[in-house]
Amino acid sequence: MEQLLEPKINTRDFIIAKAAELFNLHGYNGCSMSDIMKATHLKKGGIYNYFKSKDEIAVEAFNYSYKKIIERFRSKLDYDKSSVEKLFSIIEVYASFISKPLMKGGCPIFNTAVDATDNHPALKERAKKGIDSLQKYIEIKVEEGIECGEFKTNCEPSKIASLMIINLEGAIIMSRVHGNDEHMLLTVELLKDYINKCRT
Amino acid sequence: MEQLLEPKINTRDFIIAKAAELFNLHGYNGCSMSDIMKATHLKKGGIYNYFKSKDEIAVEAFNYSYKKIIERFRSKLDYDKSSVEKLFSIIEVYASFISKPLMKGGCPIFNTAVDATDNHPALKERAKKGIDSLQKYIEIKVEEGIECGEFKTNCEPSKIASLMIINLEGAIIMSRVHGNDEHMLLTVELLKDYINKCRT
Repeated sequence: MEQLLEPKINTRDFIIAKAAELFNLHGYNGCSMSDIMKATHLKKGGIYNYFKSKDEIAVEAFNYSYKKIIERFRSKLDYDKSSVEKLFSIIEVYASFISKPLMKGGCPIFNTAVDATDNHPALKERAKKGIDSLQKYIEIKVEEGIECGEFKTNCEPSKIASLMIINLEGAIIMSRVHGNDEHMLLTVELLKDYINKCRT
Repeated sequence: MEQLLEPKINTRDFIIAKAAELFNLHGYNGCSMSDIMKATHLKKGGIYNYFKSKDEIAVEAFNYSYKKIIERFRSKLDYDKSSVEKLFSIIEVYASFISKPLMKGGCPIFNTAVDATDNHPALKERAKKGIDSLQKYIEIKVEEGIECGEFKTNCEPSKIASLMIINLEGAIIMSRVHGNDEHMLLTVELLKDYINKCRT
């Protein structure tokens, strides 16, 4: 790896990408520095050259995964015009985390939220921030939808956002436990029904 | 510990109880034999006297946690008469896993389902079985409710059961991520509304 043209940039990114997959598969506690060394074929010094600690790699790995998630959302939502379309796309992108996983081990934000809750406060904060951004985004889209007459005026943006995220996160667990997307498909159907009932 | 009157029974149970808490806090990969030795103040041989491997302890620890969960459900559901009362109690017991946790680290079935999904097939199977039993139990209660005229005849038992579990599991994640029971309280309210709409 040290022979690459831009070693500082490329090796660092390579370590982050490999570590992101390992953390996603085995959790923070289940992934050691030796696991990262094995996956990257680098020696301890080769890794510590770019990162101070496993903690620092874990935070960077989460940022990397988060970016990939945002890219998937954007690749769909950027083409939507109305609020309804955007809410439907959020549901469909979530469902795609089961049918077309971003990386081995399921959704990185979800896994970090659960894995890191009692083990790693900095990662918990990152996961919380990611989920909060989505919650806020949905609330804004519902508010805009109410303003432009797409949604009924008595719709509650914060309730709709919470309901969507609770159901989609719950469906991810159930789909993982059962190894199929049956619960996710049911959730997609129920949430779309729910959103349709909020429309004018 | 070796001096207790019934050492074989008591030491074994003591190891299981301590390990159950450790696995629940840190996951299967995050809890090593040395962690269990430290928590029980036993030497390696003292533990291997009762268990062949960490795997065996993990499965027994899950059984122990599962029993505690069932006890909490029974302590409430055994006093309910109607199907509606039983469904409401299931929702309230789930909510109590946030307000009055059974053990440190949250709900053991939920944690095992997520933690063990990609790491430990035997534990995944146990968690799946636990969730399937709850799903089946809810379905039967809805069917009985339809038969005795408590619920409308067009209610779909399997859909109601899935919806309840998806929402309650999702609410547990969101409550853990946010460190409060706001999302769980919303879920309790929405699920009770939903069940009330199914009533005759």
